[in-house]
Amino acid sequence: MPYPEVLRDQVDRYLADMRFSSEPATAGLEEAMRYSLLAGGKRIRPVLALATASAIGIDPVSVLPLAAALELIHTYSLIHDDLPAMDDDDLRRGRPTCHKAYGEDVAILAGDGLYAEAFHHLLKSQAGDPALILACAAQLASATGVSGMVGGQYLDVGDRGDAGDAGIRRIHELKTGRLIGASVGCVLILAGSPQPATLAFHEFAAELGVLFQIVDDILDVTGSETDLGKPHGSDERQGTRTYVSEFGLDGARDLATRSHAAAIAALESIEAPSVEVDRAKGLRDIADFVWTRTS
Amino acid sequence: MPYPEVLRDQVDRYLADMRFSSEPATAGLEEAMRYSLLAGGKRIRPVLALATASAIGIDPVSVLPLAAALELIHTYSLIHDDLPAMDDDDLRRGRPTCHKAYGEDVAILAGDGLYAEAFHHLLKSQAGDPALILACAAQLASATGVSGMVGGQYLDVGDRGDAGDAGIRRIHELKTGRLIGASVGCVLILAGSPQPATLAFHEFAAELGVLFQIVDDILDVTGSETDLGKPHGSDERQGTRTYVSEFGLDGARDLATRSHAAAIAALESIEAPSVEVDRAKGLRDIADFVWTRTS
Repeated sequence: MPYPEVLRDQVDRYLADMRFSSEPATAGLEEAMRYSLLAGGKRIRPVLALATASAIGIDPVSVLPLAAALELIHTYSLIHDDLPAMDDDDLRRGRPTCHKAYGEDVAILAGDGLYAEAFHHLLKSQAGDPALILACAAQLASATGVSGMVGGQYLDVGDRGDAGDAGIRRIHELKTGRLIGASVGCVLILAGSPQPATLAFHEFAAELGVLFQIVDDILDVTGSETDLGKPHGSDERQGTRTYVSEFGLDGARDLATRSHAAAIAALESIEAPSVEVDRAKGLRDIADFVWTRTS
Repeated sequence: MPYPEVLRDQVDRYLADMRFSSEPATAGLEEAMRYSLLAGGKRIRPVLALATASAIGIDPVSVLPLAAALELIHTYSLIHDDLPAMDDDDLRRGRPTCHKAYGEDVAILAGDGLYAEAFHHLLKSQAGDPALILACAAQLASATGVSGMVGGQYLDVGDRGDAGDAGIRRIHELKTGRLIGASVGCVLILAGSPQPATLAFHEFAAELGVLFQIVDDILDVTGSETDLGKPHGSDERQGTRTYVSEFGLDGARDLATRSHAAAIAALESIEAPSVEVDRAKGLRDIADFVWTRTS
C-alpha cells in the first residue's frame, strides 16, 4: 500500500473510534456529526500532518489527536458550506448532505459541535509540551477564523473578493490554504522545530493548497459525477469564479503543473540536516496524489 | 457604582477594542460580528469570571482575555440560535438579529468566526502557566460542545429532552449552565485552585445557571418588551417547555427564590481560609442581580 494510504487508514480508524458524548438524549446530534465525519473523503489534512511528522523524524501516531482535530474542522466547514443559505448543495461524497439527511437545524449544530469537539480533543488528548500545544491550538484557531477559513468562505459565498488571479488566490489562501498550511505548520510547532528549518515546509504547504484548489476547479468541469459524488459543473451554474473560468481549462492545467513543480521544489530545498530525504517521501506522494486525483 | 457594573464597564471597554482582522475584504464579516458583540447585553459570563478572580484574590484584569472569550462564545450562540432554521427570531436586544441585518450566510459565518476568534484570543492572549491555560481552554471547549451548549441547543430546538422538571433542568444545564459554570470554573483552573476549595464555587455556578434560566422564563411572560428588546411570550408561541409552562408563574417564582437561596448558601459555605468574605461580595451581587433583573 502506498504510504499516504497507510496513513489514511490510520486516520480513518482513529476517527471511527471517536465518541463525543455518552448522553443518550444527544445521540441524534452525534449521529449527524459522525454521518458527515465518516462519509469517506480523502483525509488530506490529517494525512499531511502525519506525513509531516514522519518527515521531521517524529512518530506519526504521536500527532493523531491533532490530525483528528483537523479533519473534524474540515468536516464542520463542509457541513456549513453546504447549507441552503450558503452553497445550497444536496449531495456530498455521493450521499445527501448533512442538512438533507438530518434537517437544517441539526446540520448547523453538527457543524458547531464538530468545531467545539475538535478543540476539546486537541487540547485534552494531544501529548507534548503544554506551551507548544497551546501555540499549536492558537495557530489552528487563527487558521480557521476571520483571517482564515471563515474569512475565505465569506469572500467566496458572497463573491466579495477582488477580481482576477490575485483575488481568487486570496480567497483560496484563506478558505482552504490556511487549514492545509496548519496541517503542516501545527506539527512543526508541536515538535518545537526552529523557525528557519520550517520555512521550506511552509512554502510547500502554501503551494499544495493552491494546487489542491486548481485541481478542484478542473475536476468540477472534467470529473465524473460518480467519482466526485456530486453533480459536476456546479461552480459554473453558481457563477463561482474559478481557475477554469478565469484561465480556461488548458490555462488551469498549466497552472497546476507549475504549482506541483513549485511544491516539489520547496520539498527538495529542505536541507539534509533537518530532514532525511526518504522521510519526506510521504509529502511528495501527497503532492503527486493531489495533482493526479480524479475526485 | 455597584461592583458588577464596574466590572461590566471593564468588559465592555475591552470588547470594544477587539479587532479580528486587518484585511479590508473581510471588513463586512467583522462588522457583523461586532454588531452582535457590541449590542449591549448583561455580560453576565465575563463579569462572573472577573468577580470569581476577585473572590479568590487575583487581579480581575488578569483574566480579561478569558472573560472576552466567554462573551464572544455567548454571542456566537445567540446568533446561531436566532437563525431561521433554529428559533427564527427577528429581534435581539431591541435590534434586528444578525441574519436580519446581514443575511443568513453572513450570520452563520459571523457565529463561526466569533467561536474561532474566542479560542484564538484565549490561547494567544491569556497570560499564565501554559498547562493551566491548556486545561482552561479544554474546559471551555467541552462546555460549548456536544456535552454542553451545542448539545443543549440540540435538545431545546427539537424539543428532544425528557419530559418534566428533570428534562427541562437537563436542557438548561447543557445549554446555558455549562458555560456559566465555565465562567467560574475556568478562572479557578487558571489560578491553579486546588479541587476541594473549588467545590462550593461549582455549586454556586450551577445554581446560578438554574436561577438565570428560571428568571428568563418568567421574564418571557411578565417582562416589558422595551426592557427585553424582543416581543414577550415567544416561548409560549413556539411551544417551548419552560419553568412557567411546567410549574405556573407562582411555581416558577418559588423555584427562583429557592435557587437564589441555594446559590447564596453555596457562597457562604466557601471556607474562610480560601476566600475572604468581602471579596466574594461581587459574586453575591451577581446572584442578586440575576434574581431581580427585569431584562
